[in-house]
Amino acid sequence: MTVRPLVISMGDPAGIGPEIIAKAWTARRDERLAPFLAVGDARAIERVWDGPVSRVTSPADAASAFDQALPVLVVEDAGEIVPGQPDLDGARCALHALELAAGMTRSGAAAALVTGPVSKAQLYQIGFSYPGQTEFVAERCGIAGQNAVMMLAGPSLRVVPITTHVPLVEVSSLLSVDLVVAKARATARGLARSFGIRSPRLAFAGFNPHAGENGAIGREEIDILMPAIAQLIYEGIDATGPFAADTMFHARARSQYDVALCCYHDQALVPLKTLHFDEGVNVTLGLPIVRASPDHGTAFGIAGKDEAHPGAMIAAIRLAAEAVERRIVQGCC
Amino acid sequence: MTVRPLVISMGDPAGIGPEIIAKAWTARRDERLAPFLAVGDARAIERVWDGPVSRVTSPADAASAFDQALPVLVVEDAGEIVPGQPDLDGARCALHALELAAGMTRSGAAAALVTGPVSKAQLYQIGFSYPGQTEFVAERCGIAGQNAVMMLAGPSLRVVPITTHVPLVEVSSLLSVDLVVAKARATARGLARSFGIRSPRLAFAGFNPHAGENGAIGREEIDILMPAIAQLIYEGIDATGPFAADTMFHARARSQYDVALCCYHDQALVPLKTLHFDEGVNVTLGLPIVRASPDHGTAFGIAGKDEAHPGAMIAAIRLAAEAVERRIVQGCC
Repeated sequence: MTVRPLVISMGDPAGIGPEIIAKAWTARRDERLAPFLAVGDARAIERVWDGPVSRVTSPADAASAFDQALPVLVVEDAGEIVPGQPDLDGARCALHALELAAGMTRSGAAAALVTGPVSKAQLYQIGFSYPGQTEFVAERCGIAGQNAVMMLAGPSLRVVPITTHVPLVEVSSLLSVDLVVAKARATARGLARSFGIRSPRLAFAGFNPHAGENGAIGREEIDILMPAIAQLIYEGIDATGPFAADTMFHARARSQYDVALCCYHDQALVPLKTLHFDEGVNVTLGLPIVRASPDHGTAFGIAGKDEAHPGAMIAAIRLAAEAVERRIVQGCC
Repeated sequence: MTVRPLVISMGDPAGIGPEIIAKAWTARRDERLAPFLAVGDARAIERVWDGPVSRVTSPADAASAFDQALPVLVVEDAGEIVPGQPDLDGARCALHALELAAGMTRSGAAAALVTGPVSKAQLYQIGFSYPGQTEFVAERCGIAGQNAVMMLAGPSLRVVPITTHVPLVEVSSLLSVDLVVAKARATARGLARSFGIRSPRLAFAGFNPHAGENGAIGREEIDILMPAIAQLIYEGIDATGPFAADTMFHARARSQYDVALCCYHDQALVPLKTLHFDEGVNVTLGLPIVRASPDHGTAFGIAGKDEAHPGAMIAAIRLAAEAVERRIVQGCC
C-alpha cells in the first residue's frame, strides 16, 4: 500500500507559512513526522530557505520524494513575492492552494489537510466570503457551518468557541440551545473519532461573570446553557457546567475535563494562548476529513527574517497524522 | 514609634477565612509577614485551628501580642458557627468586621486593610447593597466607585477589569471614554504610589475578537478604547493598545506591560486565574488607604476540613505591607 502523504496549503506566500513548513520538513526525523507535501508557489519557500525543494505533480510522487527534499506541488505563480508585504496575487495563490489541498484530501489522494496561515484582509479583497478557512473547508466537504467545530488544542487544554469571529455584543443573541447542542455533539463525536477519547468529558463555561450567579448577573446560563447541558446528558454525553469561566483553566480544573466549550472567541482563546502560545493547533471537528492548522496568523512582521517558530506547525502535522491513524483503526475513513 | 499592625476582616465565619488567617499567622516567620490582627468572632478560628489566639481590644495590643499568638479583636458573637454552612448571623458578623476593620484603617490605627472572603448571597439578605466589598470600602473612604479600581495581581501578571460584576451583554453600553480614562488614571497613580512603578505601562485589551479587526468585528475599539488611549497618552500616561486579548497574556507579551486593562470581568480574571489560581491578590487602587484581599471566595465546600491553601492570603498580607512601606517612603500616608 502506498503511503498517502498529508497535504499542507502554504497560506499567504508573504507570511511565515513557507518558512514554518520548511522548518517542519527539516525537523521531520527528530520529530518523526509523517510524510507531507506543500501546495503553493515553490518560490515562496526558496526565497526564505536554502534546503532542497522537489517540485512534484501528485501526492504519490511526494511520498517517495519526502525523505530527500520538501515536496511542493506548484499551484500557480504568486507574482512578485516579498516576505512581509502581502498582495492580491499572493492571496489568490493562497486561496487556490487551499482549494486544491482540500480537494486532494476530500478525494482521498492526501491523508489529511493542514492549512498554513492566510491573510483574511487580502482574501476578502479578492472575493473570499467565508469567516475563515474552517468554514471554506466545511463547505467543500458538504458540511453545514453549525456542524463543523473549531477546536483549539494545546498540550494541556482543548477549547471549543461556540461562536467565533463576531462582535461580542452579538454573541448572546447568536447563542441558542440548538447551536450549543449541535456544537457539543460534533465535539463529542470528533474527540471520540479523531482523538480516541471514548466518552469525552465536556465542560461548559458560563457566559456571564461567575456563570451568572443563578441569574443575578445575566440569564444566558439559565435560558440557554443549562437546557442544552440537560439535553446532552439525556443523550448520554458527559456534559457538565456551566462553570465560572475564571475558575476553569488552572491545572487542577483542567484535569477534570477533556474539552472546555466556551461561549465566545476570547473566552476560549485567551486561556489557550496564555498557556500554549507557540504550540496551539486548530482542529476542525465534524468533517469527513481530518483538518488541522497552526493556531497563529501570517506574522508578516517577522516574515523572511528566519525568526518564525515551527512548533505549532509541527504540532498540527503530528496531530493530523495521529487523527488519521485513529480513524483508520476505527474503520471510519 | 509603635508598629501599626495590618487589620484583616475575617469574612464569613463559616468560610475558609478563619482557617487561612490562622495558617498565615503560623507562617508569619517563614514568610516574614508584618504584624496583623484579625477582626471577627474568635470562635470561628478556634473551631478550625488549635493554635494560640489572643483576644485583644486595640491594634496597639495586637502588635505586641502578635509574636506569641494570633491577635483577634472580637466584633460580635456570630451565633452557632458550622464551617461550610453560612447563615445570616455569620453574614452580620462578617459585615460588622469589615466595617470596623475599614474604620480602623481609615483612622490610621491600622496600617492597611486586608479583607477575608464573604458570601454575597448571605450579605444581600441582610441588606448589604454594594456589588462587593471593594465598593463598600470605597464609599467608607469617600471615593466614587468610578475612581476606585479593582486590580488583580499575581507574580507575573496584573489585570484591571474596567467593568466587573455585570451581565456581559451590558458591558458595551457601560463602557465609555470617560470610564476607561478614569479607571486608567487611577490605575497609573495607584501603581506609582503603592507599587513603586514610576511610569507604569498600561496595555489595553480589545473588546471584540482580534480587537475588532479595524471595525470589521465590532466598533468598541474605534469608538471607545482608541480615543481613551489617545487621551491618556496626551496626559503623559504610557498607554498602548487595544490589542487582541488572546495574544496579550503569554510570557513574552506580559513582559511588555505592567498592567493589562480589560473590558470585562472574565477577560481579566480568566488569564489571571489560569496563571495564578492559588496566589492572586485583589488590590483596590485609588483609595486613601491600602486595601488588599485574597482573590478567592469563601470555599464553603472545603471549610473546616483543613484543606484551604493560605497562599493568596499570605500574598495579600505581604502586598499590603509593601504598599504601606512605599507610600510612607513617598510621604503620602
